[in-house]
Amino acid sequence: MDMVKFFHMNGGIGEASYSSNSGLQRMGIMKTKGVIEQAISDLCHNNVNFPKTLVMADLGCSSGPNTLLVGSMVINAVAKTSLEMGYKSPELQINLNDLPTNDFNTVFIALQELQLQGNTTDGKMRDVQYHQPVCYFSGVPGSFFGRLFPMKSLNFVHSSYSLQWLSQLPDLEEINKGNIYLSSTTPESVSRAYFEQFQKDFLGFLRCRSEEVMAGGRMVLTLAGRTTDDPRGEESYYLWRPFAMALKDMVLEGLVEEEKFDSFNLPQYTASPTEIMNLVKMEGSFTIDHLEIFDVNWEAWKRKKNANDTLESTETGDGVGQGVAKAIRAGIEPLVANHFGEAILDDVFMRYGQILTGRKSKKDNQAIVSITVSLTRKM
Amino acid sequence: MDMVKFFHMNGGIGEASYSSNSGLQRMGIMKTKGVIEQAISDLCHNNVNFPKTLVMADLGCSSGPNTLLVGSMVINAVAKTSLEMGYKSPELQINLNDLPTNDFNTVFIALQELQLQGNTTDGKMRDVQYHQPVCYFSGVPGSFFGRLFPMKSLNFVHSSYSLQWLSQLPDLEEINKGNIYLSSTTPESVSRAYFEQFQKDFLGFLRCRSEEVMAGGRMVLTLAGRTTDDPRGEESYYLWRPFAMALKDMVLEGLVEEEKFDSFNLPQYTASPTEIMNLVKMEGSFTIDHLEIFDVNWEAWKRKKNANDTLESTETGDGVGQGVAKAIRAGIEPLVANHFGEAILDDVFMRYGQILTGRKSKKDNQAIVSITVSLTRKM
Repeated sequence: MDMVKFFHMNGGIGEASYSSNSGLQRMGIMKTKGVIEQAISDLCHNNVNFPKTLVMADLGCSSGPNTLLVGSMVINAVAKTSLEMGYKSPELQINLNDLPTNDFNTVFIALQELQLQGNTTDGKMRDVQYHQPVCYFSGVPGSFFGRLFPMKSLNFVHSSYSLQWLSQLPDLEEINKGNIYLSSTTPESVSRAYFEQFQKDFLGFLRCRSEEVMAGGRMVLTLAGRTTDDPRGEESYYLWRPFAMALKDMVLEGLVEEEKFDSFNLPQYTASPTEIMNLVKMEGSFTIDHLEIFDVNWEAWKRKKNANDTLESTETGDGVGQGVAKAIRAGIEPLVANHFGEAILDDVFMRYGQILTGRKSKKDNQAIVSITVSLTRKM
Repeated sequence: MDMVKFFHMNGGIGEASYSSNSGLQRMGIMKTKGVIEQAISDLCHNNVNFPKTLVMADLGCSSGPNTLLVGSMVINAVAKTSLEMGYKSPELQINLNDLPTNDFNTVFIALQELQLQGNTTDGKMRDVQYHQPVCYFSGVPGSFFGRLFPMKSLNFVHSSYSLQWLSQLPDLEEINKGNIYLSSTTPESVSRAYFEQFQKDFLGFLRCRSEEVMAGGRMVLTLAGRTTDDPRGEESYYLWRPFAMALKDMVLEGLVEEEKFDSFNLPQYTASPTEIMNLVKMEGSFTIDHLEIFDVNWEAWKRKKNANDTLESTETGDGVGQGVAKAIRAGIEPLVANHFGEAILDDVFMRYGQILTGRKSKKDNQAIVSITVSLTRKM
């Protein structure tokens, strides 16, 4: 499968869109605020001259409220640091990257509305109250596993919840029978092929960024990951087992072919902190300033939803299980549709939500493990 | 009317899209090839060090085959100059700008297809045969009457057939009775208000670019213009008189309200070479290297179409009158729909095409006057 063609978050702003179902990722990004602020502060303090322009890239920006969330965090961090250091805020160039099939039109219209709210229609985004930096936005279509920007053109790179996705499915020597990702019953060779694909992709990502990021430039990456050494542990699979169960039920009912089910595997890899640190060292262009692991918790998400966060209003009303199913659907629907056809979509995601809801009551505090790593481009 | 919200070329790739109806503009852009090549050659020769990266912006790029035409002309010019001078081609950053309502999704998918044809999926556009420069693309949503890029970040700016459009309709003290643009029966005050709006917009455009373009950077602008001193001459109106006639017929038949017709004016101004030169001098940041005037001729367009240019295949089959009507429709449909409602669109553009076809037989060599000016940012 050509990932560049088929892999993208659901576009638009409707009920099934990623835009309306990205609350879990939002919570994760919010938890990295301190790391982003520290990286921006370091970037400004360690420059010989205080920068006049800062060029940043958000890689895998998607289309929705989260797309502009990181940008606004960086804008605030730059404003704060400039104020502390007594300099005029640098101009900020914010490059929003995702695959060409991402819904950039929706992103650009949302940007325009933000700019109009700020009483300016001239391509800038300003918060007059806080004397924030003048910002220029652009959309950059392409895969971040290749080069996207000219040599040494970036000061700061951010990416959240994108780098766990692989550039392609690994070639598997054995069938991953009954599973759709790594589980305790996955053959060793399959698990190894997954890691090798992640290694190739992550090293390729670092190599490209090492060419694009200036000496001393910073990079903050957040990935879905795991805490355990074994990639086939429960932590990797607990979100996907219910989806496999839903598909298996549909196989039993004759709605999905068994062969189709067995040949479906998710193009993702949830790495461990050790794996990430080793690959950064292996590539050699970046030093690790900081690494942290945190949970994004379903229960916390539910509490937040109940507190009536309007950004997530379409996520309310179905219980957390269906909410999570919707969030996952917004992310993987094109993959599922491409493999099984569109006809099964409503059914399989409804079943998935039901299984998640049922399971949640048995075991609270289900959490998605996130890893954030803050890096500096060596001089 | 908020031009930023309502003014855009028709999106998509269907029959009514700008993408399928931009052959006239294409012919015009092709005529500026020599000027663009010369500007790129000067840019490379006059640099103290041969540049490692060239950053260009195409302002008002629209969505269609022309969007990437200028980019490919610049790519070839850079490759040629580098070869002549014995240097490795610089990396090229190509920023494609248009209003946020432009169909960037279609642009990005087209780019992806070009890249895939070039056997690379890694975000670069290369022609391996000619050892062309590595290119990085981005979409920049916003009005070019405001700032779009950080200070001194651009080496080369291009814009074609966009700068004749005004940022807003001028405030008119008198009614432009029976006309939709400047004609011999237009009151002097209306003509003056149009020029003043153009002056304000063009000066604002130059001021913004003077901040964004590096010292020694180049700019090639092509505008629909006129050769005569009087903006109310036939040259300005011959394309629009038939459209006004079509609307007038519909008023007589009770299909359009007379008041609606009288209050409709096009937000464009076709400037003279003298006006353009004076405004460049008045703003003061750029020197004029070269200015030329040329015609884009309907008959030549027809001959070209008959030679079966596949890019313009949807423009064949209706005669040149309907072809021009379609080309104009792709450009102004949102303006017409916003003022008169969508119901009249098919009817008015069909009538427009018929009048153009009828008229064409009486007077051959109808031409659209184009002005190209090549500028250098002063040191």
